[in-house]
Amino acid sequence: MPRWVETTTRVRWHEVDSQGVVYYGNYLHWCDLGREALAEAIGLEYTAVEVMTVEFRLRYRRPARYGDEVLIRTTMDWPRAARFVFRYEIYRKLGRELLAEGYSVHILLTRHGLRLGLDPYLHDKFVAFLGAPRGAEQTT
Amino acid sequence: MPRWVETTTRVRWHEVDSQGVVYYGNYLHWCDLGREALAEAIGLEYTAVEVMTVEFRLRYRRPARYGDEVLIRTTMDWPRAARFVFRYEIYRKLGRELLAEGYSVHILLTRHGLRLGLDPYLHDKFVAFLGAPRGAEQTT
Amino acid sequence: MPRWVETTTRVRWHEVDSQGVVYYGNYLHWCDLGREALAEAIGLEYTAVEVMTVEFRLRYRRPARYGDEVLIRTTMDWPRAARFVFRYEIYRKLGRELLAEGYSVHILLTRHGLRLGLDPYLHDKFVAFLGAPRGAEQTT
Amino acid sequence: MPRWVETTTRVRWHEVDSQGVVYYGNYLHWCDLGREALAEAIGLEYTAVEVMTVEFRLRYRRPARYGDEVLIRTTMDWPRAARFVFRYEIYRKLGRELLAEGYSVHILLTRHGLRLGLDPYLHDKFVAFLGAPRGAEQTT
Repeated sequence: MPRWVETTTRVRWHEVDSQGVVYYGNYLHWCDLGREALAEAIGLEYTAVEVMTVEFRLRYRRPARYGDEVLIRTTMDWPRAARFVFRYEIYRKLGRELLAEGYSVHILLTRHGLRLGLDPYLHDKFVAFLGAPRGAEQTT
Repeated sequence: MPRWVETTTRVRWHEVDSQGVVYYGNYLHWCDLGREALAEAIGLEYTAVEVMTVEFRLRYRRPARYGDEVLIRTTMDWPRAARFVFRYEIYRKLGRELLAEGYSVHILLTRHGLRLGLDPYLHDKFVAFLGAPRGAEQTT
Repeated sequence: MPRWVETTTRVRWHEVDSQGVVYYGNYLHWCDLGREALAEAIGLEYTAVEVMTVEFRLRYRRPARYGDEVLIRTTMDWPRAARFVFRYEIYRKLGRELLAEGYSVHILLTRHGLRLGLDPYLHDKFVAFLGAPRGAEQTT
Repeated sequence: MPRWVETTTRVRWHEVDSQGVVYYGNYLHWCDLGREALAEAIGLEYTAVEVMTVEFRLRYRRPARYGDEVLIRTTMDWPRAARFVFRYEIYRKLGRELLAEGYSVHILLTRHGLRLGLDPYLHDKFVAFLGAPRGAEQTT
């Protein structure tokens, strides 16, 4: 069972489009906040490596509006082959209405562009957070 | 066979993140440009209705960088039940390298929030652009 | 003596440019947060009227970086003739280093585009917050 | 008499706020395009150095709207002491209505954070573009 990490933020004025709802591209900024919160919970320095996004998918359920407080829940799959899958649920805090859900896939690179695998240091951090790795974890 | 519409833009300074590549969320702005170009090719007034995004998925192949000219190719599936699926391919123009590809799903609403179906006016526009509707068109 | 209202936020990943510092245009989002906090302190519904920005000036003292917590201090001049001047000081919270300072000038419009003056309701709100109006208040 | 360089762009969907006009902070992206066009006209590699913004001021005259084509005119003062002042005029191309005008002040730094002065190479580029330096040029 995945562990979810929660963080909150408020809709900002410039994030809302001319239809009065948050522009769909700005939800990605909230996912960034979710990954940050997760990295912090795991005890990772988020800035020590390059993070390359290789896929993003989000389903939008209800519009967010100016002034809304949003709750971002984030978890991750057990990493395989240097491929990291984060999963998101975004709620309007008031009434806990689901606004969007989805996932993103990332790979980690060193500053020199080399693909980073799961070294023992990272492995231990993930075990502490996620529990022991399971055999047939599906990533997408 | 889908008809693709092409448009181009240049990477802007503020779109690049601290890793020197375009922030993955900013690709969505290019998809907006692609839908605009497609709407224009079809002969639709893009602003006459509310467009609600219900899903977005993008796969990132290679990073875009400051100064790159990008080519955005856009097409759409034959619309079904007021559900519009747009498909994107984003290239670095120089060398025509694929940078990203994906799709988005939208519904159209009237200004009063009613879901818009395929009225005869829209239907004729789509037939003129896409050709006659086929039986078993897959949307996602 | 002006009353300053304080609010805080954190630098987000996408706000940082390829030089590793916050893109100068993104400071304006923080000023928006400052005005929101001020409007809340005064007891104004910020969304009840149209706010048109007529001028913006910011001096940048030191760069903000990813992860920084920033402190936004905001005050306003006594409004004259439906012209509202907000003043900002933006600090890195750690060490309270001044990052930027400036002001913006706005006018308020009704939904129908009419310029809003200082009606008794607004006047009383401002007196409660700013104190009694002074004779020779300079706005810029 | 200053030489102005012109470039154009179109208002993008996500740049418009819930009042139906371009968010005032997004005008700064257009000023970026203006400086790029100017640097190109001068023959400067804009990415060879770090550009630090130290001041920004913009006056907003009329709102820009979705779909507008905007014309950005940019010039610069004769540089003094490694301080570069750019001036902008932003028009709606249709009807050539002035939307905004202002200036920004920048200093150039080497990748190692050293302040760049006017070396002979830069000096010659500026003379070719601006003409010979004058005695009492005002920068702000």
